[in-house]
Amino acid sequence: MTTELDELGSKAREARKASLKLARISSSVKDRALHAIANGIEEHTEEILEANEEDLSAGHLAGLAGPLLNRLALSKSSLGSIVADVRRITALPDPVGETFDFQVLSNGLRTGKRRVPLGVIGVIYESRPNVTIDIASLCLKSGNAVILRGGKEALNSNTTLARISRDSVEKAGVPPEAIQIIESTDRELVSQMLRMKDSIDLLIPRGSVDLIRRVAAEATMPAITGGVGVCHTYIDHTANLEMAVAIANNAKVSSPYVCNAMDTLLVHTSIAPTALNQLANLWRISGVEMRCDDRALAITEQVKGVHAVPASDADWGTEFLSMTAAIKIVDSLDEAISHIDIYGSGHSDAIVTEDYSSAMRFLDEVDSAVVLVNASSRFNDGGQFGLGAEVAISTNKIHARGPMGLKELTSYKWTVLGTGQVRE
Amino acid sequence: MTTELDELGSKAREARKASLKLARISSSVKDRALHAIANGIEEHTEEILEANEEDLSAGHLAGLAGPLLNRLALSKSSLGSIVADVRRITALPDPVGETFDFQVLSNGLRTGKRRVPLGVIGVIYESRPNVTIDIASLCLKSGNAVILRGGKEALNSNTTLARISRDSVEKAGVPPEAIQIIESTDRELVSQMLRMKDSIDLLIPRGSVDLIRRVAAEATMPAITGGVGVCHTYIDHTANLEMAVAIANNAKVSSPYVCNAMDTLLVHTSIAPTALNQLANLWRISGVEMRCDDRALAITEQVKGVHAVPASDADWGTEFLSMTAAIKIVDSLDEAISHIDIYGSGHSDAIVTEDYSSAMRFLDEVDSAVVLVNASSRFNDGGQFGLGAEVAISTNKIHARGPMGLKELTSYKWTVLGTGQVRE
Repeated sequence: MTTELDELGSKAREARKASLKLARISSSVKDRALHAIANGIEEHTEEILEANEEDLSAGHLAGLAGPLLNRLALSKSSLGSIVADVRRITALPDPVGETFDFQVLSNGLRTGKRRVPLGVIGVIYESRPNVTIDIASLCLKSGNAVILRGGKEALNSNTTLARISRDSVEKAGVPPEAIQIIESTDRELVSQMLRMKDSIDLLIPRGSVDLIRRVAAEATMPAITGGVGVCHTYIDHTANLEMAVAIANNAKVSSPYVCNAMDTLLVHTSIAPTALNQLANLWRISGVEMRCDDRALAITEQVKGVHAVPASDADWGTEFLSMTAAIKIVDSLDEAISHIDIYGSGHSDAIVTEDYSSAMRFLDEVDSAVVLVNASSRFNDGGQFGLGAEVAISTNKIHARGPMGLKELTSYKWTVLGTGQVRE
Repeated sequence: MTTELDELGSKAREARKASLKLARISSSVKDRALHAIANGIEEHTEEILEANEEDLSAGHLAGLAGPLLNRLALSKSSLGSIVADVRRITALPDPVGETFDFQVLSNGLRTGKRRVPLGVIGVIYESRPNVTIDIASLCLKSGNAVILRGGKEALNSNTTLARISRDSVEKAGVPPEAIQIIESTDRELVSQMLRMKDSIDLLIPRGSVDLIRRVAAEATMPAITGGVGVCHTYIDHTANLEMAVAIANNAKVSSPYVCNAMDTLLVHTSIAPTALNQLANLWRISGVEMRCDDRALAITEQVKGVHAVPASDADWGTEFLSMTAAIKIVDSLDEAISHIDIYGSGHSDAIVTEDYSSAMRFLDEVDSAVVLVNASSRFNDGGQFGLGAEVAISTNKIHARGPMGLKELTSYKWTVLGTGQVRE
């Protein structure tokens, strides 16, 4: 363990040193390095899939649940998406050096805020190996060094991807030490990482509620809280029924294992009979378990073969990450907003309505990172929002909220250009 | 103590409730409330000065040092400045509701980031009573409730100012509970405050190094680090001599007790004989103690009557907050930048130069909240930079850096306007 802690320390020092160089590397060199990562992944597809196969076999042996194995699995097609992400990030403008809030003061001083990298980003994540490349690419483009600590289930995939990235960027003239990966899976190393406030400028956890809580409790440096989405869709009585059913269905079944999937469906009492009947018919086939309050159950259980059960108190406020939805009938927009206020996690909440005032009130009063009108909550995603990818989805209000892309990995410095001004 | 802790808890609950109302109050009502504060201070000038007189007498009796008494003292003129600050803040645009980074995605979704208040701001500050009004005004305008905990030396002044503010805003239709002041001076209350992460969204300490360290170590909520300025002025060999002397002199003597005052003067060896001779002549009269390295001492001690002594190692990296300056002769810009990197606190650092490349390198390579060319470091100030006032000067890179005004007291939410979009 001592050796591993020493190794962590030395990797952190390497990262710091590399971050100082990276902060001053030109956009074109960074972009060349990003293209090199994309090419490297394409060239080493077989090697990556073999490493992933090892992880999958070990996962099977360890009895990993189906959804976790799904998240872990790479394929030629998913590697293609990863490469596309990298190329999308490459094509985005470099945030570093951009100057904003520029002003000329009455005394002639020219002030502006110039975007600068944060320094060293630490990321602790679980399972999905694409995160390794998404985060390494976003950090590189924004001029930050990164220390990656992935889950033990994806160790072979992650280390292979990180090695290919390091080799690729080095050929492009970027110090490979800017991408550090921790290969030990000892949990104590995470505690050590959380204490390294002098080496890590921002800590980003991506994973389970437990991980997020642990980081919130133990991290000595600024840390992002996020990733836990107890997401709501509210179907207003004025909603277009077809649209409402499509959005609620999409929010639940298009990818139930991710944070922006719908957990609780709130339905206005006057539209509930038709909306819930249609959804129950869809979900009977796709196999969504419906945990219903009394009134909703009375509607859904009339659909033959549906998997509808009474909701328990714990279901409100649960992030299911599975083909399960809690369903509640409400009598008003007020009741819906108040339910979200009590049970939501401030992640992604949507309303389906044709009523202008209800839409505006929902946008105003629901205090979440992303609030949507007539759209699926699944759009809360860096890629979807044009950020190329995301390092995390923050439910913090400090520093960044919602999907975090390049800009959210930067700080700024005030620059002041004078001609001899002194203060009276 | 139990009663006081209960009181803190109930004030925090009141603040939270008020923050929810305040977040939705219109700009015009907030501005009316701010004008009411300004009028209230003008109408109660005598009462405020009497309360301040009590604090000053108690301070004298307690043997408070001269600079501390200076910072504590209010006058008709300083109250006039406070009122002017409030009116300047009133005149600034309301940051709440502003939508930025607006885009229409290819699928037709309209996304934007809408600025929202943070919620409840906790501020722990020492001495200067004007901070009470500056912070209450900035928080009000940005839609945040505030819990103020001032120093015991200024208790009467602060509570009087807070009471006048509460009474004033109430008449304007803003809940007075949005401005809370803690009247107990028990240090344990600060510890209690630092544990209230569910009640306070952002904690801002303004005061001594000890306070800042305590907050960094104990705060359970996001906290700003800042206020400690070990500020440098570097006089390059190409500097305009007259300008250099004026800037260094202004940075030191115009207000030596504040965080943006110069602490260490770095002078290029080739301009040192003339620059230090002129400064020594000025500082002999104004009474600045010069703590010099060997080469600087050899120059300054030739000026009769000057207070020049050898610098100790501890002087580099000290925030003097007094009429003291550390002085070091360097052989190059590199040496100056490296010295700032080692001993600076990332607050305010200035170069005086006529050389374009040196100016650009200084701006690029000095990693401070505010970097200045040919201007006094004393300009690092919210008022000077057009923010109306400031809640703090952050040396954090997370969330906000440099002087924090209205915008830095906000977060944002993503709003998404759809027409039935679902994700593939």
